[in-house]
Amino acid sequence: MKIYKANILHTPSPECFEVYRDGYIVVDDEGFILGLHDTLPADMEGMPIVDFGNRLLIPAMNDMHVHAPQYANMGVAMDMELIPWLNTYTFPEEEKFSNEEYAQTVYHAFVAELCRQGTMRAAVFATTHLPATLCLAKTFDETGMGALIGLVGMDRHSPESLTNTAQSWKADMQQLIQSLTNKAMVKPIITPRFIPSCTPEMLQRMGEMAAQYDLPVQSHLSENKQEIAWVQQLEPHSTCYGDAYHRYGLFGQTPTLMAHCCYTEGEELQLMRDNDVCVVHCPTSNCNLASGIAPIRQFLQVGLRVALGSDVAAGHHLSIFRVMQYAVQMSKLQYALSDGKYPFLTLSEVFHMATKQGGSFFGKVGSFEVGYAFDALVIDDSDINGMCPQMNCQQRLERFIYLGDDRHITHRFCQGKEISLNSKH
Amino acid sequence: MKIYKANILHTPSPECFEVYRDGYIVVDDEGFILGLHDTLPADMEGMPIVDFGNRLLIPAMNDMHVHAPQYANMGVAMDMELIPWLNTYTFPEEEKFSNEEYAQTVYHAFVAELCRQGTMRAAVFATTHLPATLCLAKTFDETGMGALIGLVGMDRHSPESLTNTAQSWKADMQQLIQSLTNKAMVKPIITPRFIPSCTPEMLQRMGEMAAQYDLPVQSHLSENKQEIAWVQQLEPHSTCYGDAYHRYGLFGQTPTLMAHCCYTEGEELQLMRDNDVCVVHCPTSNCNLASGIAPIRQFLQVGLRVALGSDVAAGHHLSIFRVMQYAVQMSKLQYALSDGKYPFLTLSEVFHMATKQGGSFFGKVGSFEVGYAFDALVIDDSDINGMCPQMNCQQRLERFIYLGDDRHITHRFCQGKEISLNSKH
Repeated sequence: MKIYKANILHTPSPECFEVYRDGYIVVDDEGFILGLHDTLPADMEGMPIVDFGNRLLIPAMNDMHVHAPQYANMGVAMDMELIPWLNTYTFPEEEKFSNEEYAQTVYHAFVAELCRQGTMRAAVFATTHLPATLCLAKTFDETGMGALIGLVGMDRHSPESLTNTAQSWKADMQQLIQSLTNKAMVKPIITPRFIPSCTPEMLQRMGEMAAQYDLPVQSHLSENKQEIAWVQQLEPHSTCYGDAYHRYGLFGQTPTLMAHCCYTEGEELQLMRDNDVCVVHCPTSNCNLASGIAPIRQFLQVGLRVALGSDVAAGHHLSIFRVMQYAVQMSKLQYALSDGKYPFLTLSEVFHMATKQGGSFFGKVGSFEVGYAFDALVIDDSDINGMCPQMNCQQRLERFIYLGDDRHITHRFCQGKEISLNSKH
Repeated sequence: MKIYKANILHTPSPECFEVYRDGYIVVDDEGFILGLHDTLPADMEGMPIVDFGNRLLIPAMNDMHVHAPQYANMGVAMDMELIPWLNTYTFPEEEKFSNEEYAQTVYHAFVAELCRQGTMRAAVFATTHLPATLCLAKTFDETGMGALIGLVGMDRHSPESLTNTAQSWKADMQQLIQSLTNKAMVKPIITPRFIPSCTPEMLQRMGEMAAQYDLPVQSHLSENKQEIAWVQQLEPHSTCYGDAYHRYGLFGQTPTLMAHCCYTEGEELQLMRDNDVCVVHCPTSNCNLASGIAPIRQFLQVGLRVALGSDVAAGHHLSIFRVMQYAVQMSKLQYALSDGKYPFLTLSEVFHMATKQGGSFFGKVGSFEVGYAFDALVIDDSDINGMCPQMNCQQRLERFIYLGDDRHITHRFCQGKEISLNSKH
């Protein structure tokens, strides 16, 4: 058992932060939370305490949409929309992952940087290459961080060197599942790239496998208008883009993450709600690829779940704190553009998306309630708050989110285990 | 004379970067550029060279709209639109600057952070308090950085403790002008807060003083719709918000900076063009205050000049590199919202805004052409480019702008003088 003392903040619900100034959090030997207290319970008097002083202690970040093999492209090639960007920059980079040595170099650097930025769990797209994907899973496993690992299926409208077949994908997927059988923190996830890259046979096989192994699903949905028109052309029988997944058992039949949803409305919105499909909001990506502003307030108003994703390398940064800023800011633009019709997102709402909502795909993760995994970050914000000793904990957290960076994160925990920061590769 | 060797990039025009891989830049003893060369000129063989190796050398940033007294509020209070935000957060903070000691603490920290983020010159709003404003000017002067210092005029619709009068503002302004007479790098600028804060008498006096001393002008324009409606009500004879300044000689009669312009169009646009008023685009601020998306592409298409501003504390960060990201991203949202009608801004266009366009208000600043002041930053991006040895200089610069931060800036020069980084206050 461990007892930590700090200024503790979390969002059990999106409405507001729960704050324990100079509070205590008690964690069992398996890394799960036993209690959260304003004052030390009497029966714990005299026990050893890890005291973080005036620092902040918050749940760690969950990145629910990120492409590990695009890491080397992060922060460049910001001059195209989705489809030409895929063909010009993304696919050529992903082809390199047939080389396992290259994969290892990039994936080590990727996981190290994810950790540096405070993200302890992620839903990750790999490529179609099994050896590289096994290497990615192993890298997460060795660091002690959590991941859903997606071996990508794509068998049309893609460079030949990147495609697999429904058969080869299934065989590879069985190997991936096999290799992760006894892993608690790293699990597989069914990952069609997106409808335009997948034949009906591929989608069929994927849906069957999701059902057979009870595996979650992740993909892309309604990111931009050209893509949506293309999907309609490729799957003329579907009533909307989401329905094209749903017909194959890939839209909420098991827990499902759908990134973007910039143009989701009407029937698709209804289908997402009926099937409890989780939106992954990727605002940095939606800006960089000129996709548009996802109508997140409308999603929340009808009860959809929304998590956050960096979507590197369409997103330019791995920090989910940075993504939170953009989520609030984009919602403010939507507020302005709608003349105030849709109230903008609050900080506690986006923090909840980044922690408890995303975390729900990993079990009880993303909150400091009893029974949750102790995934946490310790924040030393003293150098950005020197002039403002009167700030309360929530203001300090807001300032860290807007102004801080990896330098301010002094400790990282994933399910109770302290994760050390490796040097960059 | 000094000779520097590095990978040199600048934007003499917005269309593209000019790149000198392993190039040389020669600077005279007054800090002005004598030449920029691909190879060392024969007559300089054997002269001592400062060799920055594989690093990038770029023009320093110019922040053309920033509120120094709001520095302590940076990164907090991100939950309101302009008018309530001013009344709730901004004015109470600015009132503290009647205390010279407080002003000195904040202004030292502000200037140090500006320097840290790579900004060597800024057009700054102070407050209505003369002693604090003199302190701000002195702080810039002592560091060797450039500034236009704005003693704010405001005599209505503001807390009493923050207001001055046309008479007291004029007397204080004369003292400020006097104190800066022999300063090369720090100059005064006429600064009405905005129309709602200034009576006709104040505006009249300001216009006269701009003309009399040939001083530049800075203020706010058409930031949000409520504000515009308020201005129309307060200045019913004006044909548009811009005209309300123009009638008093504050809209291009001397060089003029107008921040925001989110809703500038029609007659106001024409008036800006006719009077060569420079737009200061503040996209982080426009997001944070839910103001909207300024139509920058349209401004460029009609030939308006556009510079960049952080607008701290409505903007959440002093880095102009961060502002460049948002400028590109907001233009991409406008592109998406207009179904591709307005091409989005390129990196060289926003870099030109941040360097040569903003710099023009300080003389020949912001470019590496012959005769320009050597305002420069040296960028060591080795830790973000380790995996990509094949990247060209422009890609490296793009990646630094999107991913980098103050850690990557190893040297800062303002008019040839190296500016050392003070520790944070």
